[in-house]
Amino acid sequence: MDVEEEIDLAIITVNALIVPKVLEECGKKGIKNVVIISSGFSETGSLEGKKAEEKIKEIAKTYGIRIIGPNTIGIFNSENGLDATFFLEKDVRKPSKGNVSLFSQSGTVGILSLDILTKEAIGIAKLVSYGNAADINESDLIEYFSQDEKTKVIAGFIESVRNGKKFLEVLKKNKKPIVLLKGGKTSFGARATSSHTSSLAGDYKVYSNIFKQFNVIEAETWDDLIDYLKILSIGKKANGKRLAIVTNAGGFGVLASDFAYKIGLELPEPSEKLKEELKKYLPFYASVRNPIDITADADVERYKNVLKVVDESKEFDLLLVIVLIQTPMLDEKLFEVLNEIKKPFAVCMSGKQSR
Amino acid sequence: MDVEEEIDLAIITVNALIVPKVLEECGKKGIKNVVIISSGFSETGSLEGKKAEEKIKEIAKTYGIRIIGPNTIGIFNSENGLDATFFLEKDVRKPSKGNVSLFSQSGTVGILSLDILTKEAIGIAKLVSYGNAADINESDLIEYFSQDEKTKVIAGFIESVRNGKKFLEVLKKNKKPIVLLKGGKTSFGARATSSHTSSLAGDYKVYSNIFKQFNVIEAETWDDLIDYLKILSIGKKANGKRLAIVTNAGGFGVLASDFAYKIGLELPEPSEKLKEELKKYLPFYASVRNPIDITADADVERYKNVLKVVDESKEFDLLLVIVLIQTPMLDEKLFEVLNEIKKPFAVCMSGKQSR
Repeated sequence: MDVEEEIDLAIITVNALIVPKVLEECGKKGIKNVVIISSGFSETGSLEGKKAEEKIKEIAKTYGIRIIGPNTIGIFNSENGLDATFFLEKDVRKPSKGNVSLFSQSGTVGILSLDILTKEAIGIAKLVSYGNAADINESDLIEYFSQDEKTKVIAGFIESVRNGKKFLEVLKKNKKPIVLLKGGKTSFGARATSSHTSSLAGDYKVYSNIFKQFNVIEAETWDDLIDYLKILSIGKKANGKRLAIVTNAGGFGVLASDFAYKIGLELPEPSEKLKEELKKYLPFYASVRNPIDITADADVERYKNVLKVVDESKEFDLLLVIVLIQTPMLDEKLFEVLNEIKKPFAVCMSGKQSR
Repeated sequence: MDVEEEIDLAIITVNALIVPKVLEECGKKGIKNVVIISSGFSETGSLEGKKAEEKIKEIAKTYGIRIIGPNTIGIFNSENGLDATFFLEKDVRKPSKGNVSLFSQSGTVGILSLDILTKEAIGIAKLVSYGNAADINESDLIEYFSQDEKTKVIAGFIESVRNGKKFLEVLKKNKKPIVLLKGGKTSFGARATSSHTSSLAGDYKVYSNIFKQFNVIEAETWDDLIDYLKILSIGKKANGKRLAIVTNAGGFGVLASDFAYKIGLELPEPSEKLKEELKKYLPFYASVRNPIDITADADVERYKNVLKVVDESKEFDLLLVIVLIQTPMLDEKLFEVLNEIKKPFAVCMSGKQSR
């Protein structure tokens, strides 16, 4: 076999005490890229740990090595099949190729995100768990992903930011949708953060303001992060904030209305003309205000007619369809109807599980 | 067959226009309890609808009939097997007997709760979907469930309260844990509510204060409601607020710490003595602060030793165990360890799904 390219990535998993020696060997062999999975550095809070981390920084500088880690679960690249995480495929589902790239200060948040995104059928471009960020940090990764052509959506779990100036710079330059989940928002979380990845969580209000200023979508919880990625990876961009909700489940329409208000969307009532148009397809007890409640006895035909009217209307920019699929009137044919929607839309559907 | 008891419950599902006639027939036959599933009453906003609802109230008064509904999906009782919902068992999972009783102004929130609670293996005593509450309302149901011996935990989805005075009275008298989810907290949600069950959502701040005053656990979202029921249906009551978090997943430890702060728990650091005790079972890079981060290379034995120390300590009142089960070091034996915990505790575990 002819080796045309030199392989220059090393994954180090040995005991922390031996890492400097191995890193030096890498340097001597001309390996420029190293992932250090080993724990036992500054995150321990011990003097030895901090010294060891300083030492690997020094060695890296001497030999011009770029480091991811230490204290990570590794990296993953769906494009070239590189899986340098220490999780087996039988334990963690690995995603197919996709346009979402993820960086995570926490290895477990990173690896479980891969698992859940796969379950939710969302493809991934790259995952980087960057741990203590002795060298490459969150700002470097945002910069990289904002230029990486396989990445259309950037997502990150951060506990802290090492270089505030660069963080602002890369967020300013970035043109791609970016979702961040911040750990360590409270005094409890900040203490946990300092033991976890040896980082200062910082004042959450500062983060919150930066996120707003630079159009960062802030995920409140990990579940929210996954949901945002679901939408961003497949969704179209809406041209405005005017939401229409169409549902056969009135109560969930109410809850979704409250949520739309909370996140700053508009929920305009249809014009009289549009209401008349909608009424043609609805029983008298349905509601043509917004949410448009087509009631629990709606069949696929009713969904089809109402969705067509709403989709073609210029009174709305985006569309949320909430479906209680369990009613005896609905079946799989509804999916064909949903597939025909042209506006940016999301579907929230109850699961129907055969026993 | 000898009929010893007269069956005196009627379920009415006919067209709204015919309901008054059927209800009158029930009255003449001496049927005292009626569930009206039919829609087409005050929730339509029409004069006809409102008149029809007034008419059924009148008839009920004349004959001494108690009504649940109209505009509901019915009622469910796991004790005697009564399933008067219009959903088929092949479409909606029906729960086994349990100690949670649920009332819901929204039928779809009610029926999907049954489905999800079953999926989560939480048993149910009774479900009442009460819709427009022409007669029996949220306060009547809280009063009933607070006295029902099969009910240990009360849960409700309300959009409005019809009789504020009675609502306060029954909450004051109730001694059981009660979780409420309020729909119509915002102007958008309030408008949706008025179309949905013809009710005034009211000022959310007033609700929020009442909930606090009467120890009502307020669920922020439907997911939260389900989670609260999971804990309340099986959990023990904690004697204080001092939480210990034990985890092999540092990032989720950080997120849980933030959440513990948000909901008003304490997360005390262990005493020096307890820290020394914990360190006996942990590698040097683990954290013995709180969260107690036993790191991703923890095996079942490490979990067992640490959990035993924490469980026996008087420094904590309750215990949260967060498990990344996907690591190669863990297997099902961990469940035996978790089963031995004596303090009130919750386990948050990532799903491991074989493909």
